[in-house]
Amino acid sequence: MSRINKQLNPENDNLFHLGFNTKIHNLEEMFGDVRVVCMGGSAHRMEIFAHYIMKILGHKLPTGLKLEDMTCKAHRYSFYKIGPVISVNHGMGMPSMSILLHEMIKLVTYAKCKDPIFIRMGTSGGLGIKPGTVVVTDNAFNESLENHYDFVVLGERVPRPAVFDKNLINYILDCHSTKDHFEVIKGGTMGTNDFYEAQGRTDGAVCEYTEEQKIMFLKKVQGKGIKNIEMESTLFAALTKYAGIRAATICVTFIDRLEGDKVSVTHDEKIELESRPQLIVGRLIKKILKIEE
Amino acid sequence: MSRINKQLNPENDNLFHLGFNTKIHNLEEMFGDVRVVCMGGSAHRMEIFAHYIMKILGHKLPTGLKLEDMTCKAHRYSFYKIGPVISVNHGMGMPSMSILLHEMIKLVTYAKCKDPIFIRMGTSGGLGIKPGTVVVTDNAFNESLENHYDFVVLGERVPRPAVFDKNLINYILDCHSTKDHFEVIKGGTMGTNDFYEAQGRTDGAVCEYTEEQKIMFLKKVQGKGIKNIEMESTLFAALTKYAGIRAATICVTFIDRLEGDKVSVTHDEKIELESRPQLIVGRLIKKILKIEE
Repeated sequence: MSRINKQLNPENDNLFHLGFNTKIHNLEEMFGDVRVVCMGGSAHRMEIFAHYIMKILGHKLPTGLKLEDMTCKAHRYSFYKIGPVISVNHGMGMPSMSILLHEMIKLVTYAKCKDPIFIRMGTSGGLGIKPGTVVVTDNAFNESLENHYDFVVLGERVPRPAVFDKNLINYILDCHSTKDHFEVIKGGTMGTNDFYEAQGRTDGAVCEYTEEQKIMFLKKVQGKGIKNIEMESTLFAALTKYAGIRAATICVTFIDRLEGDKVSVTHDEKIELESRPQLIVGRLIKKILKIEE
Repeated sequence: MSRINKQLNPENDNLFHLGFNTKIHNLEEMFGDVRVVCMGGSAHRMEIFAHYIMKILGHKLPTGLKLEDMTCKAHRYSFYKIGPVISVNHGMGMPSMSILLHEMIKLVTYAKCKDPIFIRMGTSGGLGIKPGTVVVTDNAFNESLENHYDFVVLGERVPRPAVFDKNLINYILDCHSTKDHFEVIKGGTMGTNDFYEAQGRTDGAVCEYTEEQKIMFLKKVQGKGIKNIEMESTLFAALTKYAGIRAATICVTFIDRLEGDKVSVTHDEKIELESRPQLIVGRLIKKILKIEE
């Protein structure tokens, strides 16, 4: 069920952090055909992904043209449109993701997109799984291991469930090929507001617990069915579900947190690992758009 | 009192999101002279600020050289060094700020910087003050109007006080000139994890309260001595204080939230407004470095 804000005025709205204004931009004309909105943390990665989608869709740019970062004047996010696909970065952490989501949900509503799907592709720390494994999140948990995200509305805590669409998860799992040299699994994801203390790292600027206490905590996290830890999924699951948007999170793991804290992959390894969720989402987009292999 | 993590190994640490590694980079040689670390949300704004600081310090680049984004290979933040000043963007929201702070605090520690000062220059919504006013934060508040930030450490809530250094605040207020065509005031700042519901905007993708309820909430916020609302100060105040780093937040206000929600400044107005905290911080840097006008 959609709970989109009924107080909105589609004729006069300013999507401030995207730099779109409904008085100036005809969003239906610009984005009415959008079917999939792909998001990831870094602007650089989402520009690479935009080019990958161009290749998948068989788009070739006319000589002398290049992909435009459509929100560059707002200086907050980087945003590309490739036919029915948007590739946009969400920055790091749930507040940055939250701003983007509010404005993207308004954008697809004003543009009258038909049942758009929002996908986050990310990187994460794994728990007891082989580094390089891709995790498709079913339930997202907050830092206190609860299966919801605590919104604060006018000063009051409002928990909303952080679960993803079951059919979409299965549809994504089916995009895994037996020929892939990595695993794709379904599991819980913990989304934290901090990379160091909240995730139990002992190498933050401040840290007042021991290695043993950390391992005890991580095992407790693992006991909840949580396979990986990142910084966006809890809010992402809760806000999209609440607004009635189908969504999924697909993250590759860089390390096994039960083995250590430091991410020490080389530049080339990082690029290969980051391409794994992109490969799966590329296949998903082909299926959605009914493009033959 | 400094509470820097005693488990750190300065010989072998990877500042992952900055792309510096103490095994490869001699941080003391690179950054030992740093006195002031200036931060702001957008990468674009911090690049402009880096050039402004060059002008203030009388630095002229040799022909054929340009300022380098020193962390560009990590694809997370944009980072410039101009003599004893660093200009770096922190993205949007406290989690993004938190990652930067952990790694910047480790950087200035490893580099043996002498009593470095961290400054955040930002934009915000005002409460009952003229748009364009610059607010220097004394106390920062969370979304529930408490004067602390709730860290979550190994699953447990750990509140730490969110107050800024009183002497530094006065030092900054003294940088205001009677010739400036804008006000600089001291006041409380509320830092939220969301731009829409937590700040009482009625134009988010979801919103289930009325204009009247919003105004009641904003007046309650105002009653706490809070002059402006943004998305970083609570964590920034709490983590720097805890680590023993002197810090300050200086934000310009774009609007008066008691009058409306939408930020509708023009591009040129935005640039002029954003230059106000930069002007004050430029004077502060001159005072710290004892550079004559």
